[in-house]
Amino acid sequence: MKKTTFLTTLIALSSFASASLIDDAKKAGMQPIPSDKKALMKLIDNPKNPLNEAKIKLGKDLYFEPRLSKSNLISCNTCHNLATGGIDGVSAAIGHKWTANPHHLNSPTVYNAVFMDRQFWDGREPDLEAQAQGPMQAAPEMAISQEMAVKRIRSMAGYKKQFKDAFGDANITFKKIADAIGAFERTLVTPSRFDHFLAGDEKALSKAEQAGLKIFIDKGCASCHTGVGMGGSMQKFPIAKPYKYADIGDFKGDKSGRVKTPTLRNIAQTAPYFHNGAVWSLEEAIKIMGETQLGVHLSDDEVKSMVTFLKALDGEMPTITYPKLPAVTATTPKPVTQ
Amino acid sequence: MKKTTFLTTLIALSSFASASLIDDAKKAGMQPIPSDKKALMKLIDNPKNPLNEAKIKLGKDLYFEPRLSKSNLISCNTCHNLATGGIDGVSAAIGHKWTANPHHLNSPTVYNAVFMDRQFWDGREPDLEAQAQGPMQAAPEMAISQEMAVKRIRSMAGYKKQFKDAFGDANITFKKIADAIGAFERTLVTPSRFDHFLAGDEKALSKAEQAGLKIFIDKGCASCHTGVGMGGSMQKFPIAKPYKYADIGDFKGDKSGRVKTPTLRNIAQTAPYFHNGAVWSLEEAIKIMGETQLGVHLSDDEVKSMVTFLKALDGEMPTITYPKLPAVTATTPKPVTQ
Repeated sequence: MKKTTFLTTLIALSSFASASLIDDAKKAGMQPIPSDKKALMKLIDNPKNPLNEAKIKLGKDLYFEPRLSKSNLISCNTCHNLATGGIDGVSAAIGHKWTANPHHLNSPTVYNAVFMDRQFWDGREPDLEAQAQGPMQAAPEMAISQEMAVKRIRSMAGYKKQFKDAFGDANITFKKIADAIGAFERTLVTPSRFDHFLAGDEKALSKAEQAGLKIFIDKGCASCHTGVGMGGSMQKFPIAKPYKYADIGDFKGDKSGRVKTPTLRNIAQTAPYFHNGAVWSLEEAIKIMGETQLGVHLSDDEVKSMVTFLKALDGEMPTITYPKLPAVTATTPKPVTQ
Repeated sequence: MKKTTFLTTLIALSSFASASLIDDAKKAGMQPIPSDKKALMKLIDNPKNPLNEAKIKLGKDLYFEPRLSKSNLISCNTCHNLATGGIDGVSAAIGHKWTANPHHLNSPTVYNAVFMDRQFWDGREPDLEAQAQGPMQAAPEMAISQEMAVKRIRSMAGYKKQFKDAFGDANITFKKIADAIGAFERTLVTPSRFDHFLAGDEKALSKAEQAGLKIFIDKGCASCHTGVGMGGSMQKFPIAKPYKYADIGDFKGDKSGRVKTPTLRNIAQTAPYFHNGAVWSLEEAIKIMGETQLGVHLSDDEVKSMVTFLKALDGEMPTITYPKLPAVTATTPKPVTQ
């Protein structure tokens, strides 16, 4: 049995050429993160919230700004930690007063989130700017009111000028806070060797990685995990079989039972997996996806091969200078930790 | 009354020359952070844990490493946030399971902590390396066992090489984890205009700042807030009068009732003040210190003048590149959030 699978893999390895695999991947809808800076800027920009250097810098400061939480202790970066793949490394997000997400939802990575069609697991928001407003206000997350968030930021020296530089006027509003954070998040993209491969460099992936990609396409994984984001569309879940860990949390997707397909970029960095963070092993996650979504049983060798491919999606994380934030003043609303 | 104080200040302003004020400050024991890099390195180094580039880099990674907490959610930087003056901006530190410090102790800043004679409010540890072991293990802080901390770090790719580069051998131990963190913390010094002044540049402080410094010395503040750290020694507290907010928490200092003098460097960035974080206003903190420790009533103008001086202790924070930490593996102990 073991031997047969090994032979199958060998045959697979020799039966395709890299160039046609690139074509197959493109036919399956996969697209590279553009290496050309202008093309990338066009792809990640939001005409309703145009990117500029000052806005990105302000957004970075606000992304790390713990005074945007009721307690002074939680920032966007707490659950979407840029040092650890853009996630928090726990099953269900934990926020204000150590409250776990009431639906046992896992924090998705912020890296490459710009490429998702929709934001949140139920896809209820269209973009990062709209998304950013949610966790700040959610009681089990940062738990701050729009009013307190604005008062906090208005009270600290330096922010006024930053808003002026970013938006053209110095008035600080909750929407602008979220827009700046969204702008920063749009820049968090992580080009990988897979992008070089898609762009035509046949040697960017090893033969073993290419074999994994072929299985990935052949089995149908790319019907959802595709596009620049290698995910991001709303999809029915489960399809073929009940999800093994459906009893953890009560999340049922959107009104049509659809769940946002998570990105597979940096997937080896972002355990635990699934909307409820039930699975720590990438191998197990792949097997479950095969059964639950595709109705296929994947062999250990097929899973192993796909893991080899998926690791090639580990991208180059942007280098981030940790911010130096302003001091609170006499007018800054005090933290409320209880 | 108001007029008299104003005149007193005017007379103070004209009755001293900058050069003699520098002498007075030095006589009061104040010393600059050396501008010479070699002299600085000598001052901040620990012969038992010699600094090197690899160790400082590793220490930075570990300082931001949330997998060094039981929950995966808390790092050294959570309570000693390098973006916000090295503190957390709450009265009492909050850690694992949102537990407040049982003695209602405030997180002291990590910036310039290398210049303190002792570590912790009760001075129970001699240096940063010994200090770093405490919060990782403390149940209301990071709540991790030494064993779990070591297993976590050993399980992640890349750390082994970093320990080899830092310590000469690749074996990862809890002591080495703390030593690396301590080494990084030793580099967190923030030279200010006051240091240029002490080093002889009479124009580095404005006349108003110099007037504040003169009052600071004349009133006796410099008997404790002195040295390179502008604090750091163990001192009886309270001395002259009971501390106004003694009822918040149950901290009584060390066995002799002594409390570590906090640094005044960046003091305008590190509210709330005192060991129990009871006071948010620097003005009020100064008044209380005058009464509690020196037995003097400070006028509003004297306080204002000293605040002007203390703001000149706002230093240049080091620029920190946010780390890119390795992914967990199958052998990494899972987070325990409850």
